[in-house]
Amino acid sequence: MKYKTSTIKVRYSETDQMGIVHHSNYLKFFELARIEWLEKLKMPYQKIEESNIVLPVVRCDIKFIKSLFFGDLFYINVFCKKKPTSTIEFTYQIFNQNDELTTEGSTTLAFLNSKSMKPQRCPKIISDIF
Amino acid sequence: MKYKTSTIKVRYSETDQMGIVHHSNYLKFFELARIEWLEKLKMPYQKIEESNIVLPVVRCDIKFIKSLFFGDLFYINVFCKKKPTSTIEFTYQIFNQNDELTTEGSTTLAFLNSKSMKPQRCPKIISDIF
Amino acid sequence: MKYKTSTIKVRYSETDQMGIVHHSNYLKFFELARIEWLEKLKMPYQKIEESNIVLPVVRCDIKFIKSLFFGDLFYINVFCKKKPTSTIEFTYQIFNQNDELTTEGSTTLAFLNSKSMKPQRCPKIISDIF
Amino acid sequence: MKYKTSTIKVRYSETDQMGIVHHSNYLKFFELARIEWLEKLKMPYQKIEESNIVLPVVRCDIKFIKSLFFGDLFYINVFCKKKPTSTIEFTYQIFNQNDELTTEGSTTLAFLNSKSMKPQRCPKIISDIF
Repeated sequence: MKYKTSTIKVRYSETDQMGIVHHSNYLKFFELARIEWLEKLKMPYQKIEESNIVLPVVRCDIKFIKSLFFGDLFYINVFCKKKPTSTIEFTYQIFNQNDELTTEGSTTLAFLNSKSMKPQRCPKIISDIF
Repeated sequence: MKYKTSTIKVRYSETDQMGIVHHSNYLKFFELARIEWLEKLKMPYQKIEESNIVLPVVRCDIKFIKSLFFGDLFYINVFCKKKPTSTIEFTYQIFNQNDELTTEGSTTLAFLNSKSMKPQRCPKIISDIF
Repeated sequence: MKYKTSTIKVRYSETDQMGIVHHSNYLKFFELARIEWLEKLKMPYQKIEESNIVLPVVRCDIKFIKSLFFGDLFYINVFCKKKPTSTIEFTYQIFNQNDELTTEGSTTLAFLNSKSMKPQRCPKIISDIF
Repeated sequence: MKYKTSTIKVRYSETDQMGIVHHSNYLKFFELARIEWLEKLKMPYQKIEESNIVLPVVRCDIKFIKSLFFGDLFYINVFCKKKPTSTIEFTYQIFNQNDELTTEGSTTLAFLNSKSMKPQRCPKIISDIF
């Protein structure tokens, strides 16, 4: 399964004194991508949290190929290659306005009960989607 | 009443492509200052939140006199000039490693019940301090 | 003069443990608004920086009326009430998806030569616009 | 080679509505650790940038074992296991105030000429250290 996000614009506050987007922001961009996808799948993140599930990131990696700059327009392709279990893994590719691949990465999120903070299986309502 | 914070160092991630600290970070610095002060006064913010009070900022202003740069060491003088009511106002002055005044500002925080999110009077345990 | 921004969505990473948008983010939202406006006026911020001018914020204030929450959709009305001199002042109003006024504020930016970091008058190309 | 940072305190602004430190902040913590180490080695990052070298992150990964919370005190062990070439790799372990390992990760940074943005070999002055 795969989703292509709407276009996102690099904000001034996301740059650092090297003149490029600070690398920590890409994890926020990946988060935007999976949340936008879940919303398109009628499974908004708010609804997940309301059913007492939280989805902290337990693992991530990023490969930076080209920098993003202030004002750049980019979109993200986000994939889910494996059936979710007690975790769900998303893979990402960021492309700039010239359709150049700038960034690749992945994040693994765990399904936790928001009260006990104990791991649980992926809720059926979500596993049915992926 | 007045408190002088410990020394804080400007982080790389706090800079922007102008080569200075992005102005939004100063609100985080002011927050550090009041939280450190409350902790010194044996009133840690965690304890306030545990007693079902939250303290959102309802008003703030900042005057930027000199920029802070990556690696700069600064401290903050924080004041409370008025007795808290249903709000509490803090005033701040930031000084760099050359004891130059770089920034002045103030923030007003409201005492809200964390469940109803309704305003309430400053708890006696806090008003007794200030 | 006045401009209404496109719709912006609150990101998960912009929330804090109070469950609301951290107040420091509103300065980033104001920045988005003035940059989007300048771009619509054919005066993109990149072009200003390329002509060796930087525009640091020298003063700001914010009044928080209602909180913004994760997923909220908002837009910003941004105004320029006075002719720019060596500084330019923008005034902002943020409205949420229910057209409720959530936030008011203003920022004053100084025109500085990016090499000498000395103040200068507003370039004619910009003062002609406002 | 190995370095243990001074103690760092989790800031309120680093939390998200899950009540934990937002995962993007760990890349800022890793950056703090390597910058503090380089400074202790008499190779401050400012000096590197002044010699027309920039060090963007080209690859990173993080494994989140336990969450960090507002007010937590943590330190970071940072390692350099391999001789730098045109890149330098740092490995990190974050420990909280109970000496529990909360986070592991690594970042690879490239040596680039700050004007041409072309890769270059690690300057001798740095490779001699590691």
